[in-house]
Amino acid sequence: MRLFRTVTIIGVGLIGGSIGLAVKERRIAGEVVGVFRRASTRAKALRRKAVDRGVMSIAEGVRDADLIIIATPVCAIPAMVREAAVGARPGAIITDAGSTKTWIVREAASAVRANPGVRFVGSHPMAGSEHTSVDFARADLFEGAACIVTRTSRADERALRAVVRFWKALGGRVSVMTPERHDARVAMVSHLPHLAAFALAGAVDAPDLRYAAEGFKDTTRVASSDPSLWADIFLTNRRETLCAARLFSGSLRSLIRAVAANDRGSLVRLLAAAKKKRDAFLSGRYG
Amino acid sequence: MRLFRTVTIIGVGLIGGSIGLAVKERRIAGEVVGVFRRASTRAKALRRKAVDRGVMSIAEGVRDADLIIIATPVCAIPAMVREAAVGARPGAIITDAGSTKTWIVREAASAVRANPGVRFVGSHPMAGSEHTSVDFARADLFEGAACIVTRTSRADERALRAVVRFWKALGGRVSVMTPERHDARVAMVSHLPHLAAFALAGAVDAPDLRYAAEGFKDTTRVASSDPSLWADIFLTNRRETLCAARLFSGSLRSLIRAVAANDRGSLVRLLAAAKKKRDAFLSGRYG
Repeated sequence: MRLFRTVTIIGVGLIGGSIGLAVKERRIAGEVVGVFRRASTRAKALRRKAVDRGVMSIAEGVRDADLIIIATPVCAIPAMVREAAVGARPGAIITDAGSTKTWIVREAASAVRANPGVRFVGSHPMAGSEHTSVDFARADLFEGAACIVTRTSRADERALRAVVRFWKALGGRVSVMTPERHDARVAMVSHLPHLAAFALAGAVDAPDLRYAAEGFKDTTRVASSDPSLWADIFLTNRRETLCAARLFSGSLRSLIRAVAANDRGSLVRLLAAAKKKRDAFLSGRYG
Repeated sequence: MRLFRTVTIIGVGLIGGSIGLAVKERRIAGEVVGVFRRASTRAKALRRKAVDRGVMSIAEGVRDADLIIIATPVCAIPAMVREAAVGARPGAIITDAGSTKTWIVREAASAVRANPGVRFVGSHPMAGSEHTSVDFARADLFEGAACIVTRTSRADERALRAVVRFWKALGGRVSVMTPERHDARVAMVSHLPHLAAFALAGAVDAPDLRYAAEGFKDTTRVASSDPSLWADIFLTNRRETLCAARLFSGSLRSLIRAVAANDRGSLVRLLAAAKKKRDAFLSGRYG
């Protein structure tokens, strides 16, 4: 289903590359352009056919784009929005794939003022893994994935609808909410699990790892993620990350208290309540 | 490689069933007998060919066994050891597959006195998943898995060697250590990840689960485990579980402090140190 003539992706790693593959496979755009900083990454993305054309400058990449997607690490997004807005044609829509939204949307709103013909809509496709390279990109990465699109009080409805349609076309389950609500929700279900996994891997003595098995492997998988990238996610969603961490510490403390008191009844109840939520998540029957 | 004439498995679930399948596939015993409490489980295990013969009484099941493996939930193990010892023939060896060792080994040492011809050696094959049923049993479950065999000051060397050979024959990477050392090590790499996963799943508001993705899914996988079973594991390894939880809380607090202080340098360092250990675990280059 063709939605755009030209889609330009700035930052063609796991997420950007998967967007490129999906847009091409689903024929959502006439052309997919990738913007790169390194020739080696461009060569890799072209080999994987994640983009039709790869350029080394944002100005060149965004010139003909109807939709520009910024899929760089969080902290780089506002600067990319500014540069993309300057070079974009009137009517172009810019969106992103960053994991935090309040900070990005606020910064992007001011960055996009460089060109009054251009609109920014924040997005967060909740897919990916501990990997960052285009080598791991997959056309079906967004199939069934939650994709959050943010609406602010000054939202442009046409641009918002176009971005919603885009993620739906990629197979996403789209929800629209304020950036603030996004950050609170996602802090609990994504940023907090990452923080806990890093804390867990960090707590273990290296020699004990020889006794670690599947439980440790899965519980800490995301602690193999990129440290700089996640430091920026935690810091650009600082308030909500800290709030989620407090709720988690409370939940952990209740378990510790039941263990310390040898209170089997309370402990089983707490574990069963946790299992119930995990099982509901798996079966898709939540809340 | 035939090591025993008759191996008897008491409790034929995921672990017991996988032992049966592996013993049969690798021809480690002439016959594998399963002891069941419910006819339905016996029928299932026989259908899966996890055992050659299924009986409903421990006395009948252990009569001819050279090796008896108790693969029931932790709390039931000492009582099973006592009953198995009473009915076992002289020279029989009893082992278990329980996740905690100090408590089990102490209780089993007294339980096994019922029959002076019988020896008990504690084991913990570190394999399995959040599932408990024989439906999930696999002949290769122990392939490459850490298997800890415990040695006490009163260990019978012949029995210890036989149990070590048994887990090696199933493909396990065997380590021999005291029950106390086992409990401290395993609290960090197994019991703690379970506690953290339960705390994480427990902290989330059910309606937010619609936004949860792969990170949440893996980090909380083991929170789908059986609550009673894990309550008993935490409680029979209470001191070490609490000690591991304290170390984890400290690790989490360091991360929280760096986020709260907006201290990107410290945060990246802490995350990178955690990632290094997780990556070392994956590549098998630890300690």
